[in-house]
Amino acid sequence: MSATARLQHIRLVMVETTHPGNIGAVARVMKNMCLSHLYLVRPRLFPHADATARASGATDILDNARVCDSLAEAIGDCGLVIGTSARQRTVNWPVLLPRQSAQQMLQSTGLPAALLLGRESSGLTNAELDVCQYLVHIPSNSEYNSLNVAMAAQVLAYEMLLAALPQAEGEENRATQAGNPHLRADEMQHFHNHLLQTLEDIRFIDPRQSEKLMLRLRRFFQRANPDREEMNILRGILSAAQGRKVMRGGDKS
Amino acid sequence: MSATARLQHIRLVMVETTHPGNIGAVARVMKNMCLSHLYLVRPRLFPHADATARASGATDILDNARVCDSLAEAIGDCGLVIGTSARQRTVNWPVLLPRQSAQQMLQSTGLPAALLLGRESSGLTNAELDVCQYLVHIPSNSEYNSLNVAMAAQVLAYEMLLAALPQAEGEENRATQAGNPHLRADEMQHFHNHLLQTLEDIRFIDPRQSEKLMLRLRRFFQRANPDREEMNILRGILSAAQGRKVMRGGDKS
Repeated sequence: MSATARLQHIRLVMVETTHPGNIGAVARVMKNMCLSHLYLVRPRLFPHADATARASGATDILDNARVCDSLAEAIGDCGLVIGTSARQRTVNWPVLLPRQSAQQMLQSTGLPAALLLGRESSGLTNAELDVCQYLVHIPSNSEYNSLNVAMAAQVLAYEMLLAALPQAEGEENRATQAGNPHLRADEMQHFHNHLLQTLEDIRFIDPRQSEKLMLRLRRFFQRANPDREEMNILRGILSAAQGRKVMRGGDKS
Repeated sequence: MSATARLQHIRLVMVETTHPGNIGAVARVMKNMCLSHLYLVRPRLFPHADATARASGATDILDNARVCDSLAEAIGDCGLVIGTSARQRTVNWPVLLPRQSAQQMLQSTGLPAALLLGRESSGLTNAELDVCQYLVHIPSNSEYNSLNVAMAAQVLAYEMLLAALPQAEGEENRATQAGNPHLRADEMQHFHNHLLQTLEDIRFIDPRQSEKLMLRLRRFFQRANPDREEMNILRGILSAAQGRKVMRGGDKS
């Protein structure tokens, strides 16, 4: 199942948004992060050219946005409802981190699930928070903690997409897997032998006295883990340094 | 130590930003996420009223922003340099997820560490990516994967703040990959210059025809990330290959 499919039951609900540019920015965020359903409760100006401009190609999200007269209308059919809050601790509401909030949203698949984004100036009212099962708080500078509403949407949507990606859990392995496959150990050994011989030939080392230095170089090149083409280039450089004729046409590499 | 203190060595570098509003939005993101140092390489319009408006109170970040004539000037004194890329897979560069990138940035404390944010339209050039040890890719909709630059900054800064918070989740991963501290970007550039000169001297390449080959070698050595002693050894080998007298007593290394 694709991430988009796993996020299909999720809607973002913007409550009484003042600046249409923020609606457009949220639409772009949603499309970037594989979210589809935008609800707007009493937007001050919508549709609006600023929304379209900031949506930057995500106009399908705007075109399909549902404009509602009340929050109740926007979330009436939802199961899980999570509200965003700039306050870190709120009595009586469980406050989640974005990652935990994303996991709740992903797991809540029976009914639509809603994430509420409040007014630019004042967020969500207590009455609006009352319909939420959870609040989510984005960690921030305690002395400057008011995120732009579209930025908040970006962080929360990013965590939802991560949670929806099939390989998200094994992510710590990903960068390493993207590395080169290793060359055969004997090829690496040939390279190290060639390197040693070359360093003697150019009188960089006296091999009888340079065990530690060769060990450093060995570890360096093992760690660097050259691929086949890089190995060919390195071997070619060694041969050239030894004074053997090397013909390189240049950019054929 | 506070999150702000733990993030003090990190700078965000915006390269040839077109819209001043995006600079303001990034300033706000930075202040929200406890980051302090903004560098601007050849911004099209700065200072500008749009930047100030979008910064929304984070004008101190804008006031202290360093405007630079070149990327080299902005990152010359940096160790770790990470570039943002909308492409998921790039040959020969390790591509990190935002969380991994944040861990690298947090661990790289000896010298300033830079996160590069490219142009709105076209991102970073290959030449700019070449100075990076890593790329970072924000997962996104494969059919609509171009995030607004300030949104990308928000996601990456959010992960950095999470990594800097004392109780951040995933804390167990924090100290795992203690790779080498990175050498300064300008030292790496001196090495690449020396390598090029040596390859000409030993007639391995015709420099006018070997751009791609030099690029391969550059990426190889950036990835290998030599430490100071390895760099000294490599420079010594180059000098020896050039026929300059090098005296190595062997195991003093």
